[in-house]
Amino acid sequence: MSFSTKVLTMIPKGVATLLPEGTYRRRMIEREILSSFDRWAYQEVIPPIFEYLDVVARGLGTEHLDNAYKFIDRATGRIMLLRPDVTPQIARIAATLLEGEPRPLRLCYSANVFRHEEEHAGREREIFQIGGELIGPSDAEADAEMIALTIEILLRLGLKGFRIIIGQMAFTQGILSPFSASPLFSQKILHCVSKKEASQLERLLNEEQVDQKVQEQVLALIDLLGGEEVFQKAESLSRHPDCIAGLKRLREVYAILKAAGYEDHLLVDLGEVRGFDYYTGTIFEVLCDGVGSELGGGGRYDNLLACFGAPSPSTGFALSIEQIQIALAHHATPPENGQSRVDFLLLHTQKERVRAMALSAELREAGFRVIRKNAEKIVDIGSYREEARKQKIKKILVVPEEKGGNLPQVIDSDNGEIRTQDQQDILAWLRT
Amino acid sequence: MSFSTKVLTMIPKGVATLLPEGTYRRRMIEREILSSFDRWAYQEVIPPIFEYLDVVARGLGTEHLDNAYKFIDRATGRIMLLRPDVTPQIARIAATLLEGEPRPLRLCYSANVFRHEEEHAGREREIFQIGGELIGPSDAEADAEMIALTIEILLRLGLKGFRIIIGQMAFTQGILSPFSASPLFSQKILHCVSKKEASQLERLLNEEQVDQKVQEQVLALIDLLGGEEVFQKAESLSRHPDCIAGLKRLREVYAILKAAGYEDHLLVDLGEVRGFDYYTGTIFEVLCDGVGSELGGGGRYDNLLACFGAPSPSTGFALSIEQIQIALAHHATPPENGQSRVDFLLLHTQKERVRAMALSAELREAGFRVIRKNAEKIVDIGSYREEARKQKIKKILVVPEEKGGNLPQVIDSDNGEIRTQDQQDILAWLRT
Repeated sequence: MSFSTKVLTMIPKGVATLLPEGTYRRRMIEREILSSFDRWAYQEVIPPIFEYLDVVARGLGTEHLDNAYKFIDRATGRIMLLRPDVTPQIARIAATLLEGEPRPLRLCYSANVFRHEEEHAGREREIFQIGGELIGPSDAEADAEMIALTIEILLRLGLKGFRIIIGQMAFTQGILSPFSASPLFSQKILHCVSKKEASQLERLLNEEQVDQKVQEQVLALIDLLGGEEVFQKAESLSRHPDCIAGLKRLREVYAILKAAGYEDHLLVDLGEVRGFDYYTGTIFEVLCDGVGSELGGGGRYDNLLACFGAPSPSTGFALSIEQIQIALAHHATPPENGQSRVDFLLLHTQKERVRAMALSAELREAGFRVIRKNAEKIVDIGSYREEARKQKIKKILVVPEEKGGNLPQVIDSDNGEIRTQDQQDILAWLRT
Repeated sequence: MSFSTKVLTMIPKGVATLLPEGTYRRRMIEREILSSFDRWAYQEVIPPIFEYLDVVARGLGTEHLDNAYKFIDRATGRIMLLRPDVTPQIARIAATLLEGEPRPLRLCYSANVFRHEEEHAGREREIFQIGGELIGPSDAEADAEMIALTIEILLRLGLKGFRIIIGQMAFTQGILSPFSASPLFSQKILHCVSKKEASQLERLLNEEQVDQKVQEQVLALIDLLGGEEVFQKAESLSRHPDCIAGLKRLREVYAILKAAGYEDHLLVDLGEVRGFDYYTGTIFEVLCDGVGSELGGGGRYDNLLACFGAPSPSTGFALSIEQIQIALAHHATPPENGQSRVDFLLLHTQKERVRAMALSAELREAGFRVIRKNAEKIVDIGSYREEARKQKIKKILVVPEEKGGNLPQVIDSDNGEIRTQDQQDILAWLRT
């Protein structure tokens, strides 16, 4: 390809172009996940791809707002943005269009979201997500349902070696309550805690001359990481009511998931903080060995629906299909690609066109992948065999001219083996 | 809903929000169409949702460029646009990433495209399209394959009362060849021809003092509309080589489709012009009684791949899922909505949680839609029946406490009928 052609055909980095094989795998994963959601009685919805900035801003954190793609709506002059996150959209749908539906309301979606990234950051700017939201219940069972469903989805996809990191925003916020007057400082601390940067965190706390006991509590967050034993360590840390309530809740959630047999997949991390401003309670993220980014995550967001006029406790999660695809490539045998195979090249002369069309319709009806080719005159079958092999077509079916005694021929495009067959029996025979 | 809430929750007009029922129908249609493409050996690809303006502009007509959503790419400062049309993207993919694949290359896609529309025009700004492209062959069979596949798709969806309007850009351009020096004037004429505005067209031709014979030819285009007889009428109209070749081709395409038994769906219209600059030969559009907009259309675009460095004859088409949904609502019984039904509400006490989780996993594995509910204590079954009815859940399955003799109960949420059942047999029994 010449340089000028290359420039002509450039596409933006971080935006997907999926070729047949990748598309086939993605569709398989999407279908499998949506069928899990279906069995858990989640109903799929399709949210709009762009939104008025001022409307959706109420449900979005500043980071997402800053990194959203924005443009002016020609019809109204208002600023629109490409959705950077689906959860606030579902919250709005639940709070408005589906306000009258009985709770609990279980919704799911398969949608792409968009985020500005530096061109060379190597991160995707168009992210394909599948997620679910459970609107209404406030109990531990609902929190656990998000995580159990995530685990079921990943297990059904054949993924191994993944871990669910569970945390509790209420507990963490309780520890940080002394700083509630300075949200910016809280933000900095949370950042250090989530990155486990102890020395940086210590410097920050010292600079602001934070009380020694509070310093210890905050620094302890970094180490509240592990199995069930973390709960006991955390218990003595603070008497703040949010901490006590948060810890009680997380224990319940853990107990449910343990009872379901999922303990091996769990890791408690009370320093875990997700990058969305709307989370309020149990949160989690999914990690997998050998995959740099998280596969997904979610949590409780009890204040989000109030932004759209109908307060309700809620919880939800989303998975990145891209990251799951990467994880599967590491940890599971990839599913066989049926997409690259065509069953028949149906070859015929001009005179036999009508019969050939009828036969190809019949074969497709029977579930075969068929390409019909009007060869005008069939002289050299060898050239067609070569064409068929190139196109990964398994068999060539030659429709004979309609004279007594001439039977259709099925030719194996690989080895040239020929079988002749009565047309009445051909379908039955082809199936065997 | 108060006024202020309404403002808070406004979404841009012409952008889709699909609720569960609409999403379910859309998914059914999408699956059905993609499975038709699969049987015709088309491989699905996913093209990027935004593109650099200068790159994709080479394959787009001015109307689409003008109406595309544009924004600045923060990383590079270049102008990006949300794709207003998928065909040029597929052309680029075929010409570059899939340049080495053997021809014919059959590709399909399911994608949304974006076009600025006046807010009150009532037209969609986000359009869900499914389409296919056949790269390589230049013959009439390829042209006919587009139309035959379109017809098969619509018939399989159960649609009746649709018509395929077929035209020929080469023929029409041949008639307009006297104006080839003034493309703007050609454009105006084409507009009048396609809208069948005879008097307006006559005025235009008179104003420019067009030769009388040419005037007659151009005006005749408007009436070249009907069945097979149109070909004879058109034959005497012009000796321009493009007209002769175009007409010969359209006759061949018609003959193939007639042989396939599709004559009743066809209408020839030599004044038919599609609003894309890239069409060169046989074109078609799909109309349906009672639906204002076309359901889709396509045609031959032999010069498009050259824009991306690898010239190749090609043809393709796209269907609007939205318009097909509208047409189906008019002309077919809507498919049953399985989405609004949940099979079981699995009710249990705190003590029975482990067994209840195992049973719900088993039921889901067997294909049932299940919601599990931890009721802490089950006192009044009536309230649960009411909850189940509201949520359209057919049956309540009560997991009994694990004491000898207590069997699971299945309660019909409508009539309260109770059956008790041995848990070992419950799956077998539930299936019947």
